[in-house]
Amino acid sequence: MKTNTILLASRPQGEPTEAQFKFETRELPALNSGDVLLKTRYVSVDPYMRGRMSSAKSYVAPFEVGEPIAGGVVAEVVESQADQLPVGSLVVGNLPWQEYSVAPARSLQQVPADQAPISYYLGLLGMTGLTAYFGLLDICDPKEGETVVVSGAAGAVGMVVGQLAKIKGARVIGTAGTNEKVAYLKELGFDEAINYKTADVPAALAAAAPNGVDCYFDNVGGPITDAVYDLLNKHARIAICGQISMYNATEVPMGPRPESKLLKTSTKLQGFIVSDYISRWPEGVKQLGEWYSQGKLQFEETVTEGFDQIPAAFLGLFQGDNTGKAVVKVA
Amino acid sequence: MKTNTILLASRPQGEPTEAQFKFETRELPALNSGDVLLKTRYVSVDPYMRGRMSSAKSYVAPFEVGEPIAGGVVAEVVESQADQLPVGSLVVGNLPWQEYSVAPARSLQQVPADQAPISYYLGLLGMTGLTAYFGLLDICDPKEGETVVVSGAAGAVGMVVGQLAKIKGARVIGTAGTNEKVAYLKELGFDEAINYKTADVPAALAAAAPNGVDCYFDNVGGPITDAVYDLLNKHARIAICGQISMYNATEVPMGPRPESKLLKTSTKLQGFIVSDYISRWPEGVKQLGEWYSQGKLQFEETVTEGFDQIPAAFLGLFQGDNTGKAVVKVA
Repeated sequence: MKTNTILLASRPQGEPTEAQFKFETRELPALNSGDVLLKTRYVSVDPYMRGRMSSAKSYVAPFEVGEPIAGGVVAEVVESQADQLPVGSLVVGNLPWQEYSVAPARSLQQVPADQAPISYYLGLLGMTGLTAYFGLLDICDPKEGETVVVSGAAGAVGMVVGQLAKIKGARVIGTAGTNEKVAYLKELGFDEAINYKTADVPAALAAAAPNGVDCYFDNVGGPITDAVYDLLNKHARIAICGQISMYNATEVPMGPRPESKLLKTSTKLQGFIVSDYISRWPEGVKQLGEWYSQGKLQFEETVTEGFDQIPAAFLGLFQGDNTGKAVVKVA
Repeated sequence: MKTNTILLASRPQGEPTEAQFKFETRELPALNSGDVLLKTRYVSVDPYMRGRMSSAKSYVAPFEVGEPIAGGVVAEVVESQADQLPVGSLVVGNLPWQEYSVAPARSLQQVPADQAPISYYLGLLGMTGLTAYFGLLDICDPKEGETVVVSGAAGAVGMVVGQLAKIKGARVIGTAGTNEKVAYLKELGFDEAINYKTADVPAALAAAAPNGVDCYFDNVGGPITDAVYDLLNKHARIAICGQISMYNATEVPMGPRPESKLLKTSTKLQGFIVSDYISRWPEGVKQLGEWYSQGKLQFEETVTEGFDQIPAAFLGLFQGDNTGKAVVKVA
């Protein structure tokens, strides 16, 4: 059996373009005992994948040039050599950008069909939701009445971070790149939202945080982060989750040195990746699912349709095209 | 009764000079009940005091222009209105740069005369020893076989950090600014020591840390710190204790942004000041005293003699004049 696949054609210099991607038809291997044949339903596109396109050492191994790009996928079992995953089962896993794929059942996680839209297992109830959950609750640990700033607040991670901070009783300030996103953050319950493309960010943040900043959840890096550093309260906590404003940099990004500010305020800054918390994922999925079913958490997706649109959906992440989680509906 | 005192004459712009200091004779107040009259024996000069000379918000209130500079002092009680501190008692406290002073007994801590040189209560068994103790053991928490880098390693804090890391079984690399200091660090048991003024620091650090860096105790900031960031292992821990290379900066110091490096390695970076651990000071003094009496910890002081030499001893900190703790013997 053959499948369409998307390969990494070349490593990007700076901002990725369509030239990085190559469509090809490949023959799938036969199923061994324990394997399943999967039909891809939803593909996740995420900023962190930019890092895997480079050959530089990072927290996950780089993609190989000439090989399929892979990431979070929700798929349906259409043929099974594994008792635990009968035909019709829905699964989530790290799978290639292909219309069909073959994988061992033990590398996949079954997901229920009826508790939430199945694409949510790539978002709220998957990698990005868990990233928000552990980064905010374990690293930042906001207390009632404290002030939390979230950058990239209208993204898949940020929108959950802000809502979790509200559940914890904090004052929440978000930054985003369009007026529509800012309006959406207000709808979600953010106390303040700032359009970083039109506002004087340091002044707007200072006005929005008259009592200073206790927690900062950073998805973007750069000048927004610089401005937050100037507002830190004593014993502030910072979770570094992403640095999307830096991912396409072709030179070493320079900025004001932060260490003196972190020193004066006894601030903790922690870089993290969701896999640091792998042993606690079930706890996170359970709690997020409860808050979702209780109506305490909303979730938003930007859904692009069609396997051939995956590269465009990925590239759109760096243009701020998505509100909430960017996914591609394949079938 | 009158005393000589040293006032802050003006706030420094950039590097402080003798012009910042003014000697004056002042009348001491009469003793109230609970007060003691103190004769200053040793005065501590410390890099953090540079911060108090500025009016900028920091972790301790600024000194006032026209008022005495104050800091760590070991003194002897020469007149007492407090039963708990009879004449002849030795105390340590935060006291003005004066030959004599009056203070409430409750603001002072009595120290034994016979367990260690009394000046050590400004160093190994005082503020700088405790800074090393909590910063290394609580924040960095090095494990046996891990690699620890200490900048400003021949200073009062750094020399204790390195020895504590050796007690914990780590491989220890120190940086310092003269060949004499480098030789001294080797004598103390550091595995590697680098003269940052003559070495290619990134290359020398990479060669000294073939297995990467697990813990970094930073006293200096700037390019040495930049080089350490490039060597961090997954789940590294950084204690930001000082940034002496930045204290006299007159412009915002710029450098390569560190956040992406901290993100990729899930590194924790924590700014701190010893007062964050005030409730645990007795534990720290006890443990440091035990290791000292067991011969597991050595300590070194650079002692300047004479009350009138206090400003020069302070200014020398920024020239790297001291090995170990800089103190001034007043009487």
